Amino acid sequence: MMKVELRSDNAVGVAPEMLAALAAANHGTELAYGGDTYTEHLHNLVREVFEHPSARVFPVTTGTAANSIGLSAMAPPWGAVLCQHNAHIIVNEGGATSMFGAGLVMKGLGGDSFKIDPAELESFLEATGWGDPHVSQPAVVSLTSPTEYGTVYQPKEVATVAEIARRWNLGVHMDGARFANAAARLGCSPADLTWRAGVDVLTLGATKNGAMSTDAIVSFDDAASEQLVYRTKRAGHTASKMRFQSAQLIAYLTDGLWLELAGHANRAMERLAAGLGQLDVGFVNDPDVNILFVTMPPDAIDRLAESGVLFYRMDESTVRFVTAFATTDEQVDTAIALVGAALG
Amino acid sequence: MMKVELRSDNAVGVAPEMLAALAAANHGTELAYGGDTYTEHLHNLVREVFEHPSARVFPVTTGTAANSIGLSAMAPPWGAVLCQHNAHIIVNEGGATSMFGAGLVMKGLGGDSFKIDPAELESFLEATGWGDPHVSQPAVVSLTSPTEYGTVYQPKEVATVAEIARRWNLGVHMDGARFANAAARLGCSPADLTWRAGVDVLTLGATKNGAMSTDAIVSFDDAASEQLVYRTKRAGHTASKMRFQSAQLIAYLTDGLWLELAGHANRAMERLAAGLGQLDVGFVNDPDVNILFVTMPPDAIDRLAESGVLFYRMDESTVRFVTAFATTDEQVDTAIALVGAALG
Amino acid sequence: MMKVELRSDNAVGVAPEMLAALAAANHGTELAYGGDTYTEHLHNLVREVFEHPSARVFPVTTGTAANSIGLSAMAPPWGAVLCQHNAHIIVNEGGATSMFGAGLVMKGLGGDSFKIDPAELESFLEATGWGDPHVSQPAVVSLTSPTEYGTVYQPKEVATVAEIARRWNLGVHMDGARFANAAARLGCSPADLTWRAGVDVLTLGATKNGAMSTDAIVSFDDAASEQLVYRTKRAGHTASKMRFQSAQLIAYLTDGLWLELAGHANRAMERLAAGLGQLDVGFVNDPDVNILFVTMPPDAIDRLAESGVLFYRMDESTVRFVTAFATTDEQVDTAIALVGAALG
Amino acid sequence: MMKVELRSDNAVGVAPEMLAALAAANHGTELAYGGDTYTEHLHNLVREVFEHPSARVFPVTTGTAANSIGLSAMAPPWGAVLCQHNAHIIVNEGGATSMFGAGLVMKGLGGDSFKIDPAELESFLEATGWGDPHVSQPAVVSLTSPTEYGTVYQPKEVATVAEIARRWNLGVHMDGARFANAAARLGCSPADLTWRAGVDVLTLGATKNGAMSTDAIVSFDDAASEQLVYRTKRAGHTASKMRFQSAQLIAYLTDGLWLELAGHANRAMERLAAGLGQLDVGFVNDPDVNILFVTMPPDAIDRLAESGVLFYRMDESTVRFVTAFATTDEQVDTAIALVGAALG
Repeated sequence: MMKVELRSDNAVGVAPEMLAALAAANHGTELAYGGDTYTEHLHNLVREVFEHPSARVFPVTTGTAANSIGLSAMAPPWGAVLCQHNAHIIVNEGGATSMFGAGLVMKGLGGDSFKIDPAELESFLEATGWGDPHVSQPAVVSLTSPTEYGTVYQPKEVATVAEIARRWNLGVHMDGARFANAAARLGCSPADLTWRAGVDVLTLGATKNGAMSTDAIVSFDDAASEQLVYRTKRAGHTASKMRFQSAQLIAYLTDGLWLELAGHANRAMERLAAGLGQLDVGFVNDPDVNILFVTMPPDAIDRLAESGVLFYRMDESTVRFVTAFATTDEQVDTAIALVGAALG
Repeated sequence: MMKVELRSDNAVGVAPEMLAALAAANHGTELAYGGDTYTEHLHNLVREVFEHPSARVFPVTTGTAANSIGLSAMAPPWGAVLCQHNAHIIVNEGGATSMFGAGLVMKGLGGDSFKIDPAELESFLEATGWGDPHVSQPAVVSLTSPTEYGTVYQPKEVATVAEIARRWNLGVHMDGARFANAAARLGCSPADLTWRAGVDVLTLGATKNGAMSTDAIVSFDDAASEQLVYRTKRAGHTASKMRFQSAQLIAYLTDGLWLELAGHANRAMERLAAGLGQLDVGFVNDPDVNILFVTMPPDAIDRLAESGVLFYRMDESTVRFVTAFATTDEQVDTAIALVGAALG
Repeated sequence: MMKVELRSDNAVGVAPEMLAALAAANHGTELAYGGDTYTEHLHNLVREVFEHPSARVFPVTTGTAANSIGLSAMAPPWGAVLCQHNAHIIVNEGGATSMFGAGLVMKGLGGDSFKIDPAELESFLEATGWGDPHVSQPAVVSLTSPTEYGTVYQPKEVATVAEIARRWNLGVHMDGARFANAAARLGCSPADLTWRAGVDVLTLGATKNGAMSTDAIVSFDDAASEQLVYRTKRAGHTASKMRFQSAQLIAYLTDGLWLELAGHANRAMERLAAGLGQLDVGFVNDPDVNILFVTMPPDAIDRLAESGVLFYRMDESTVRFVTAFATTDEQVDTAIALVGAALG
Repeated sequence: MMKVELRSDNAVGVAPEMLAALAAANHGTELAYGGDTYTEHLHNLVREVFEHPSARVFPVTTGTAANSIGLSAMAPPWGAVLCQHNAHIIVNEGGATSMFGAGLVMKGLGGDSFKIDPAELESFLEATGWGDPHVSQPAVVSLTSPTEYGTVYQPKEVATVAEIARRWNLGVHMDGARFANAAARLGCSPADLTWRAGVDVLTLGATKNGAMSTDAIVSFDDAASEQLVYRTKRAGHTASKMRFQSAQLIAYLTDGLWLELAGHANRAMERLAAGLGQLDVGFVNDPDVNILFVTMPPDAIDRLAESGVLFYRMDESTVRFVTAFATTDEQVDTAIALVGAALG
């Protein structure tokens, strides 16, 4: 029985273009630890793609590394990172930000559609005891876009949060583990989605979109960049053979490959959502990108699990479907049919 | 104009008995760093007062030190400390627990009367991804009793929480910054309020109840005790002249001085609450011990602030009153009269 | 002009067999974060290769990560890691062990041939204030083999150090960033070089020997292994697409590829050392593996730097040559000739 | 048998003047956590005594706290603190600096008379891989004066080290656990010994010189001061009843009490050294202040230990004698006589 993979965009392999980039980079010798020509090229490319004259890029192995190390360069140990209470950094990274941040704490705020509510952010900052050392001092707002629940911040929404942050002297971080999916959906320039809207440091995910264990911190803030040289190294994330991460990221960001791969995943989800929308199920979120949470009767989920569709069950009556750059129309249609059958 | 001090039980001085103990300890020479005869005596006394054969006591300077160092000895760095969301450790200690715990995180749970809701605790633990390294692993429940809002856990309530914790292999910590006030109110033995109800490590506050910058970690858990020898030292909390902390704590725990001082503060609050109860104000909490949050019209608070009563204003229409071991009936009656006048 | 790469074994690329393994692993979908079939296979393979029934393997990105995270699982924060004072962990990892170890310190000991002197180790342990919290408590001995200076611990030397460590209740760690080079040189079984000689946790390097940013922690100690599940994740080193690391390591450890690659590098150094030995230069170390430090007149070094040989200059009159799995006889002979010419 | 206390200046009690200051401060109520009038006074007094317009003072419980928290405010986590290899911070504080510094490392340098050798410092800094994240970046030089071995840096020696530090952009820290003993010996102004010679942050010891568990961080550096507000609090060293620490320090620094007490201890040591100098023993150090290490035959030490003199034995044939503010001439003469007798 053919399996339809809808568990995670981490479950698929590596995009052929990036595998080819690895092979192509495997000749000659290069200085280690980022002193290679690929990484130099990558820096220039990131500045070009993000239209920023001094952006710096730090390839790391995982999104957890990118988020937690990036945040540790933006906040003092007595600071607080504010995020929506469902954010990956507070729920799913084992406290990495608090470790790398030397006791930096995270505070979860509310908000609809899994996004930070600007009014709640403003109230939180107004109620903060600024300068009172009893109180963890808010230092960064971290936005996850797309969110863990597949919704996306519009550039204007980013700007609204960032404007509040700026007014209170907080930095702005974006967890963009699926940044390409957001960019592909919104059709905005990377600059408009990040630093032009107020983002200082970005986690630029690539692994979920076809790379091989390669994400990156993109810093638009010089002070953070200086710290990151040291912070990535002592976290064990400065690969000696960095050229292979950089080569992948070069392929990724060249000629729009990243948007193409992510656009494919998004369209697969559109097709899936359109099909499921005809069935008797509920949607927990707007599938802005490649993630959809669906409610259906428990026994139907039980049947679906036996049917060949691979997915995550969140609770008795909720499942998560995630499409990827490799998801085919045939797989989507099969999944729709199998859900229909499971519903009986 | 005489000021009536109702801001904090930290604002008053040192109880005469403890000041006398300092002077009495100031003769002869003693080994430093806890090798003195006073500290040895204190260990025996704590075991007697708490009816526990192997309890150990670690004098430290502040409640923040006692809480955060104590918790760091109970949880691995990848753990989570669960507490009520208003707990001092999560709101008012500048992230100390996360620092000493090497990235240990705190999670705030709900609950009425500022106490942890056992059902919510149980649900949280049921929903936890045990063994999943993405998820901070719950390792300790920390109870604050009395709470920051002047309510008290009944021994049975402690036991209910502790039983849940035990079932899920969590340790139980009690922030007893005002432990004597709880013991005095409940009339229970210290043992019944702590280890017999399931508490492993206690912050035994004394400073708010008449001591001079001396609180203590009381550990009923041998594994934690072994760690605390090292953890207190490298936190800079192992005083060379520990005898002066120990001498105070000996005076405190001898002949019920601690309960007498705390009972006095509690009774002052009873008198205050009885008087205020006759006026047109609201009570935010049951004043189980020496803390009362009161709502009254903003302009009345403005007038009260001019009247000679010292208090903390929490927001536009809420104030906090705290009585102490040194509060007199006359001060209480003056305060009641001034509140009455401020209400107009 | 053809360049002869002798700067570092990090400067060469990826061995064809491991690149092929990446491509071969790129089909189908797999559970993320180590739940894949490759990683499962790798665990079994490591147990087989190391002849240990419960060894566990944790792929990470760098040797720094492997060393520092591994050590943090072996020592309490108030502990000390003892190593030779030239060890990579104390000289070249930016304090990573102290960071991941939450303030764990490193102490450098002396010793000939860049190896720990057992007598000095014993003296250090005898002079330690055990149980005195003023004193960082020795908790682990970390051996680097091969050392940074290309010398190798004989199994008996490992056992001598480990026996001392064991007697004082210290764990034994081995930084084996070039472990395969040692194994190839000594012709011993991996088990004899590690756990049978007393090693608890091994950094198994692969990157310097042909892998693509993939080293691993191999733990023979169950308590450390349990911690490492959490410690690797919150360090951002648990790759979602771990299968690609595992696939490389499977290729590496299968059919002796690792020993073949390392043996090649060792033999290239033998050839180089034999050639240089005919010239008027000095050797700082015995080139047991693929590293040689050579002294020569400063102006000869200046000329050599212009000649096409790539190397590191350590000081005015010392250079480092490192061979790799990809070094050819022709390159070696060219280098010898160019050194001869530079000497004039 | 009367005991003569020569183990430690920590073993004696509290100077009467400081005990009196505690009692005198025990009236009325005061704002907690340093918002009191005593602490305000102390700030002004420190600025006057140290002739510095913006110095700030942070009372803490121990010298370990003062050193480690002070250093953590002067260096990034990837930094290194350079000190003489016998320094208290590296030998006797259980790694506190590495903990509070989030993995900050300490490097021990050599030097005669237990003081940093400026030439070795300069060489170390010259050999450092600046900007290389593999290498812990030197960020602070910490001088201990008086040293653990009772020697003292002359102002000019401080300035020499500080000038080197400044040239390489390092901060300068002074562990002055016995600062008053140095000041009393040298007859220099506190300013000349500290900031005028280049010191940025000072541990101002008081406990060893008659205070009750009260030392202080004195910061001449505004950036460090801002951090210390938060760092002391989250270390649990911001006492709610700070007035009692401040009242002691006010008494200490007023009318030269600190110099008088320290001068007494120094003179007791002069007397002791003069007497011992007549006997057949060796001196390990110049007793610049109140500490003397003496070599004598092992069996004589055995006899001395039985004689009523309390001292620390460092090894078979070395003992440490420390005088204090409370040491009497009679005690000194008794000690000399008993050493004479023990020598036989």
